[in-house]
Amino acid sequence: MTTRPPETSATVIDQILDRLCALGVRHLFGMPGDYNLQVLDRVVAHPRMKWVGTTNELGAAYAADGYGRVNGFGALLTTFGVGELNAINGVAGSYAERVPVLHIVIGPTTDTEGADSPVHHTMGDGDFDRFARAHREVVCADAVLRAEDALFEVDRVVTACLRESRPGYLRVPRDVALGPAPPLPSLNRPDPKAAHPGSLDNFRAAARVRLAESDDVAVLADFLVDRFDARAELAELLAAGPLPHATVMAGKTVVDEQAPDFLGLYAGAMSEAHVRAAIDGADPLIMAGVLLTDHATGKFTHEFDPEKAIRLGPTSARVNGVEFPGVPLAAALTVLTALIKERPPARASVTAPRRQASSTANPPVGNFPAAVKKSAAALFRTFCGRWTPLTQSYLWKAVGEAVRPEYIVCADSGTALIGAAEQRFPDGARFVSQPLWSSIGFTVPALLGAQLADPTRRGLLLIGDGAAQLTAPELGVLGRHRLNPMVVLVNNDGYTVERITHGMSAVYNEVARWDWSDVPAALGVPNPLVLSARTPAELDRALIRAAATTDRLVLIEAFLQKVDVPPAFHRMTANRPDKAKWVP
Amino acid sequence: MTTRPPETSATVIDQILDRLCALGVRHLFGMPGDYNLQVLDRVVAHPRMKWVGTTNELGAAYAADGYGRVNGFGALLTTFGVGELNAINGVAGSYAERVPVLHIVIGPTTDTEGADSPVHHTMGDGDFDRFARAHREVVCADAVLRAEDALFEVDRVVTACLRESRPGYLRVPRDVALGPAPPLPSLNRPDPKAAHPGSLDNFRAAARVRLAESDDVAVLADFLVDRFDARAELAELLAAGPLPHATVMAGKTVVDEQAPDFLGLYAGAMSEAHVRAAIDGADPLIMAGVLLTDHATGKFTHEFDPEKAIRLGPTSARVNGVEFPGVPLAAALTVLTALIKERPPARASVTAPRRQASSTANPPVGNFPAAVKKSAAALFRTFCGRWTPLTQSYLWKAVGEAVRPEYIVCADSGTALIGAAEQRFPDGARFVSQPLWSSIGFTVPALLGAQLADPTRRGLLLIGDGAAQLTAPELGVLGRHRLNPMVVLVNNDGYTVERITHGMSAVYNEVARWDWSDVPAALGVPNPLVLSARTPAELDRALIRAAATTDRLVLIEAFLQKVDVPPAFHRMTANRPDKAKWVP
Repeated sequence: MTTRPPETSATVIDQILDRLCALGVRHLFGMPGDYNLQVLDRVVAHPRMKWVGTTNELGAAYAADGYGRVNGFGALLTTFGVGELNAINGVAGSYAERVPVLHIVIGPTTDTEGADSPVHHTMGDGDFDRFARAHREVVCADAVLRAEDALFEVDRVVTACLRESRPGYLRVPRDVALGPAPPLPSLNRPDPKAAHPGSLDNFRAAARVRLAESDDVAVLADFLVDRFDARAELAELLAAGPLPHATVMAGKTVVDEQAPDFLGLYAGAMSEAHVRAAIDGADPLIMAGVLLTDHATGKFTHEFDPEKAIRLGPTSARVNGVEFPGVPLAAALTVLTALIKERPPARASVTAPRRQASSTANPPVGNFPAAVKKSAAALFRTFCGRWTPLTQSYLWKAVGEAVRPEYIVCADSGTALIGAAEQRFPDGARFVSQPLWSSIGFTVPALLGAQLADPTRRGLLLIGDGAAQLTAPELGVLGRHRLNPMVVLVNNDGYTVERITHGMSAVYNEVARWDWSDVPAALGVPNPLVLSARTPAELDRALIRAAATTDRLVLIEAFLQKVDVPPAFHRMTANRPDKAKWVP
Repeated sequence: MTTRPPETSATVIDQILDRLCALGVRHLFGMPGDYNLQVLDRVVAHPRMKWVGTTNELGAAYAADGYGRVNGFGALLTTFGVGELNAINGVAGSYAERVPVLHIVIGPTTDTEGADSPVHHTMGDGDFDRFARAHREVVCADAVLRAEDALFEVDRVVTACLRESRPGYLRVPRDVALGPAPPLPSLNRPDPKAAHPGSLDNFRAAARVRLAESDDVAVLADFLVDRFDARAELAELLAAGPLPHATVMAGKTVVDEQAPDFLGLYAGAMSEAHVRAAIDGADPLIMAGVLLTDHATGKFTHEFDPEKAIRLGPTSARVNGVEFPGVPLAAALTVLTALIKERPPARASVTAPRRQASSTANPPVGNFPAAVKKSAAALFRTFCGRWTPLTQSYLWKAVGEAVRPEYIVCADSGTALIGAAEQRFPDGARFVSQPLWSSIGFTVPALLGAQLADPTRRGLLLIGDGAAQLTAPELGVLGRHRLNPMVVLVNNDGYTVERITHGMSAVYNEVARWDWSDVPAALGVPNPLVLSARTPAELDRALIRAAATTDRLVLIEAFLQKVDVPPAFHRMTANRPDKAKWVP
């Protein structure tokens, strides 16, 4: 399990690091603090773990989340009190978005605790458990480690993280972390695909009846397919079709978006008409790991009835509102695949409406080198767009076309997410966003984590200037680790998604005007390439140059009008003016 | 109470703002989010409240804290979930450091809550109280407002904040915030000086006996004197002396540091010898609002016995360990002043050892124009120091000498705080630091708050490069509000105070190398003056130029060796090598 030299006896922190390594974690994010320094010695000495210091613990939590989304598990290590509380919003985001992340907090020694000592980073009142209690609200399991049962508690928390796909919290007094540890037992890793046989049979029977009732089967997929390891099973179901299918915002890239039956983004009244018709009119709708949040449903403007759907959750399935517990997503999808294959071919083909021409559909990726196609598109648009200012509509379409299969695209909440979500990416590309938690600034550190988790991918960060100000210092950490993503920074002088919601010209939606062209270098990014785009033509040229520049960070500063928004917003206004504002 | 036009009916948020105004609050820090936008309309429309948007809610909390320290009360307004959790570390700092701050969180409507709606910024599970529960660990009072008793709850929380000098938390569903409010009753503001008469008499009697026992009376003062409004009473006690007296780090500038009986900074084994002798040897020691934290005591190396002291807390006093409840600080100080005045003059003079020559004592401020004195000092040092690199020892002495009575000095935890704390400031200058909570990066936003709270003062920010990376984006907010502080940025390539503690050359104590000369302009500070100092002579010239430049922000980037530390660290090593490391 470990490659530690035999003469060095293992400590509790070593065993925790080994456990993380067994889960595929190779990078630990965090910041030093005087309670954790000796523990960090063990981290940097660990043969398979790399320490990644961020500029603020919030960045560490976001980075661990981005890492966890790509890698399957992430981790951060902070110092007691100040460090852990800086991180808590990021940990809460992992809870909402179901990313398994372990937050390790190194605290004062057991003796210091026992003496109720008024040391720094405490309230001075001897209560050392306040911040563990605060974390209890945002994690699925937590523990304060004691020497006698430290490793047992570690595995209790880690197992809960795996089972629920959510964050866990460990506070480790420094002496416990550095104390001796017995051999680590092997982890009984929960199997996310194991079903209760009887319940699965009952589900199969109910689903068979339900599928026999109608020909208008469609599939709506969401991020829980990714979190509960059911991508392959979903792909098999869709291959058994043809089955028209869509994803909600949080589920983007859980299916091949170039498939002929892929309808596009579903978001209630924000959807394109053909997507809306197919999903709202499906009978039955197969909901694969769908959370009916405001963002998934275009602020609850969906018109399908979840009680009439075949609804698959992480650990249970429902058919017409009847629950079948112990039927996890992957197993349920496999059952449905078999049932779809049972159907007569003639009927199956009826279920597949032709994909409609859509202004947002990208051309399928063919055999021409991508650069040639991009250049041709760019030339065309240069001709058309030389004299017109850049719009959000143009921007997101061009960005969508620039995405390659090896990219990981991180889109921050706001116009970047809404604009990018409905672009069709080539199969293979991954999308990271946070529509439920929607904490602006998340994606700068999430990109750091995602890129370290999979260095074969290139990062493409899409973010507005207001959001980027929250976490911009982490750009320097990207630079320090020689990561070379592309960043498209939408400069529209403030919080445009808020402006559209309320306060079009309100002072509270404005921000300090940064000189973004100087920001990466000032924050320590070595030799960044900074490009600006005020017209479609400039954007096209910048995207081509950015794609070709892989040896340094590229920032494209796209200048947009304050009140320009992606087309999805306009559809919302046209379709459901009563709910057009994004305010719940 | 309000200047609202009579035709506009008051809402709950208007009344909360009026209540804040009655407490002297004129600036509300925070960030917009879609749950709070309509509420922000009421904020910007309020005739006496100014909205100050920060780049991250953590900055808003720190700014409200800095504002509260100077103004007596501070406030921030954030959005539900993401916003409030970004702020929680700053709010926790206010709790530890006893700053009254109101955290107003605007949440989803009561209807949304009632429907358990899976809206964004929640966990999607219908539990809207998680973050209020998390805040309960770091505030002295909290409430979720409902229409029927909203204002009652506001005053319950505000009164607790005033009584305890600590932060409070209000979650306000948007509809409640914008709902009608009855007239605001007048606030029964707790009187921090009101004593229980019988208990005060008992305290007087006990203190009289205790003071009669010995001639070696000395006074040690801390920040609670400031928080519980007892500065004037402490000054009266000291004027009744002579009484040798010192302050601990957190209490810096609660007394006139130019007074002949002021000994300097007390910090156990970190103190200069004469301070240590006078305080550790005092009999009795009068402890005025002293919290015996690790930073106050040089990691518990104090040698006086608190049980033999006259120990004054916020609401009770102790003499030889016997508690007198209901005796607040100010009242107890007034009693002691009378008792000291009762003593025969001959005895009183015995208690005043002559102030010793000290290398860190600044010359008292005389009648020469400050600039002339600074220039003469600079010329001298230019001669001596042209070829030597800048040291921490030189830096803090020079910075200390540059402080003027109208300055407010914010020193971030680390070498900046430890270096600045033992410099003697001219009477009138104020010092803001956070030794107990010790959250690095605190002072950039705290300076914003402190400067807005008292625009007649000039800000002087002292911070290391590692700490500044946590909150640097708030520099742009300073610029946006045309605040023109001086910033001394100690660039020593990482976390030097951690290096001294542990990990002298460890990678985890390094940070991305920023180009600090470009940072202020890149982050939106208009026309900043950026100076660099690598030698004592360059530092002197920079300090003189910075003092004279009042129409824009000045950044002095002081380059120091990675492992150079203020003299106090060396005293600690020499005096108590067993406790020299800063690790509890």
